[in-house]
Amino acid sequence: MVDDTLVKALLAESEMPTQWYNIVPDLPEPPPPHLHPGTRGPLTVNDMAPIFARALCEQEFSTERYVDIPEAVAEVYRIWRPSPLFRARRLEKALSTSARIYYKYEGTSPIGSHKANSSVPQAYYNSVEGVSRLTTETGAGQWGSALAFACQVFGMGCEIWQVRASYEGKPYRRMLMETFGGTVHPSPSDLTESGRAVLAAHPDTPGSLGMAVSEAIEAAAGSGGAAKYALGSVLNHVVLHQSVIGEEVLRQLPMFGEEQADVVYGCAGGGSNLAGLSFPLLREKLAGHADTRFVAVEPAACPSLTQGRYEYDHGDVAGLTPLLKMYTLGQDFVPDPIHAGGLRYHGMSPLLSHTVNLGLVEAAAVGQQEAFEAGVLFARAEGLVPAPESCHAVAAAVADARSRTRPEDSVAMVIGLSGHGQLDLPAYQTYLSGDLADTVRL
Amino acid sequence: MVDDTLVKALLAESEMPTQWYNIVPDLPEPPPPHLHPGTRGPLTVNDMAPIFARALCEQEFSTERYVDIPEAVAEVYRIWRPSPLFRARRLEKALSTSARIYYKYEGTSPIGSHKANSSVPQAYYNSVEGVSRLTTETGAGQWGSALAFACQVFGMGCEIWQVRASYEGKPYRRMLMETFGGTVHPSPSDLTESGRAVLAAHPDTPGSLGMAVSEAIEAAAGSGGAAKYALGSVLNHVVLHQSVIGEEVLRQLPMFGEEQADVVYGCAGGGSNLAGLSFPLLREKLAGHADTRFVAVEPAACPSLTQGRYEYDHGDVAGLTPLLKMYTLGQDFVPDPIHAGGLRYHGMSPLLSHTVNLGLVEAAAVGQQEAFEAGVLFARAEGLVPAPESCHAVAAAVADARSRTRPEDSVAMVIGLSGHGQLDLPAYQTYLSGDLADTVRL
Repeated sequence: MVDDTLVKALLAESEMPTQWYNIVPDLPEPPPPHLHPGTRGPLTVNDMAPIFARALCEQEFSTERYVDIPEAVAEVYRIWRPSPLFRARRLEKALSTSARIYYKYEGTSPIGSHKANSSVPQAYYNSVEGVSRLTTETGAGQWGSALAFACQVFGMGCEIWQVRASYEGKPYRRMLMETFGGTVHPSPSDLTESGRAVLAAHPDTPGSLGMAVSEAIEAAAGSGGAAKYALGSVLNHVVLHQSVIGEEVLRQLPMFGEEQADVVYGCAGGGSNLAGLSFPLLREKLAGHADTRFVAVEPAACPSLTQGRYEYDHGDVAGLTPLLKMYTLGQDFVPDPIHAGGLRYHGMSPLLSHTVNLGLVEAAAVGQQEAFEAGVLFARAEGLVPAPESCHAVAAAVADARSRTRPEDSVAMVIGLSGHGQLDLPAYQTYLSGDLADTVRL
Repeated sequence: MVDDTLVKALLAESEMPTQWYNIVPDLPEPPPPHLHPGTRGPLTVNDMAPIFARALCEQEFSTERYVDIPEAVAEVYRIWRPSPLFRARRLEKALSTSARIYYKYEGTSPIGSHKANSSVPQAYYNSVEGVSRLTTETGAGQWGSALAFACQVFGMGCEIWQVRASYEGKPYRRMLMETFGGTVHPSPSDLTESGRAVLAAHPDTPGSLGMAVSEAIEAAAGSGGAAKYALGSVLNHVVLHQSVIGEEVLRQLPMFGEEQADVVYGCAGGGSNLAGLSFPLLREKLAGHADTRFVAVEPAACPSLTQGRYEYDHGDVAGLTPLLKMYTLGQDFVPDPIHAGGLRYHGMSPLLSHTVNLGLVEAAAVGQQEAFEAGVLFARAEGLVPAPESCHAVAAAVADARSRTRPEDSVAMVIGLSGHGQLDLPAYQTYLSGDLADTVRL
């Protein structure tokens, strides 16, 4: 019996997941291994350890089903976790739909998105191993501010290469990183060889996540061990950390009287948000306990899942990363600078790519005009301004919900609302003034 | 026994207060009445009704101890209420204090501050009475975005005069109001007689809340009944609505094992945030159930409680409002444009002024340099960037906590964290770059 008054399902801190979930042992086929960029043989923990904290490298290759969340991480998680699951009753009314629309809201985290779920453990493991500084890249600035916050918590420095289009178009994100004590460079920069190489060839480039990754890795690799690198999405250990999202949803849906999610919509750039929300629910499906559809919603301007090839590719422009089997548009693909900077990545999480390839997860692409139309509708109905990235998931869910008007078409939808858009208001302004193109220079 | 692991106390929606609390019948002396600006006799419901919804006028004069929260309002409150009460354990550690620091966080509301607690009922009562449009003023933009959201919920138009200093210095707030469907004018504007009069005398004025109030009232009064006016602070009915904050705190402190708050710090501009947090706790004190100190923290640049006179004054520049007995710097006082735009008001809630005059609430003034220093400290420890207004309360609490290092000096402090500062990051940037004066042109 579905509850018709509850607006949000809240869990007590004592109900917060104590373990992350790793889907690898539950998949019908093991995912293709990462390859060493030199030898093209399977990558090992020792290959990765010069760049990443060893504990994270071990998680990257783990086949354990559950990994304990360290108490020092759980203590920080408790600032915002468990996060709320909302019933979007006002949005349902605005759409005249018979669908029951829920959204898992990660915007209550300190930095306003799901990214803190991984930045906190990444900073923690590095600090335990004696690393004094982390380098990273950031697109929209969500990951960068999450890592700056986490480094502050564990007393470490944080150096961030921010994609130039966002650095210039989203100054508030840079200010947030600096407020948390981070140091921010626009990427490509003249601080690294890879940055200088791109600038020489394309002086006016808006930048891309792939370029920024190269610069951040190069800076860590050249630090003589003082600094290590942290990645905000794509890799298995990041997907692992994000599994707290879906684990909580499994506990929260029954609070509304729901037996299962019928369909899940999440935006997908590097894939960690969607995978974190979906994989615990996919575990239940694979075990025969639920029948859930999963839809990865990507921007039409950067359509790795719907237009890319499933093949081995580098995660960055300069080819410094391992070769990852993933849906990719090519390591040197530079997406148009759409407002959803967090989705401007040429590749996709290998684990998520694998589940898409196996037919376990579907993919759809949405233009940014449609994304912001849905975002404004959502904001006016629910009062929360979604991040431009999240708007893509909202748009796909809205289109689905609009087609469901009869009681017998009702389903339980879960939208992954990965963050709020209060620092992205200029993009909304552009949309509201009618000046938004489906591809837009920031 | 104080709980040493809990980070935040969350209440279920079913535990949300069902009534607002009115302190008037519990005060040792009745507050001085509002006066009619023409006759100087006591104001009546009928005097106010042409400008405000009748239900709100009745609340303004109510001597009932409790007022039921309408279900249509409670349904919207449930989007973010009950709001969390946090234990600021990391801040305590950073300060090496023996004090137990709690903060009641209102930034989880759709617009990021406590203002939605009153905008929603104000829009609701007006919509029930057939009003199709509300006019209002806004300083920092918090109240304006709260009312734009509430008007959107109840299908009404919303027209907002935003103090020019904030309109120009905080464009994101304007964008948020527009995203919610509001119409925003910088104040003073040439759309009203009172605005034109100020512009003629002071063409370069940064504006003030008092000027913007005059313009919004004039626009409502001249609308032939189509529009009414809404005020975001100061008046008794606004203070009434904000009482949900303190009522929740009374339920949440015992979840941490606390018997009472020993001291409460809240910022005070118009006074509704501090009064909403404090009055339910003051009720317990007046009934002999607790021994709590209350401190209203105002900006040194606009020190109505600490430097003003307690006398009858208008709430606006043009003298359109009733005469209110309050601590005031004079209706034509134009405070320097500090970053905490929400605190730039010449007067103070008559109810709060009365409790200060009776010695039940203390007052302190804090400079903005000290406020931002505390804000950055808080952000780096707790991960939440406080609104510049809230930073004033944080600063006073931090100064107190620093003086408490021995176990026997430990007390339970509650800070009213009225909102987040993600849209105020340029102010933080100014502080971090060392360019912040204690009085600063935006």
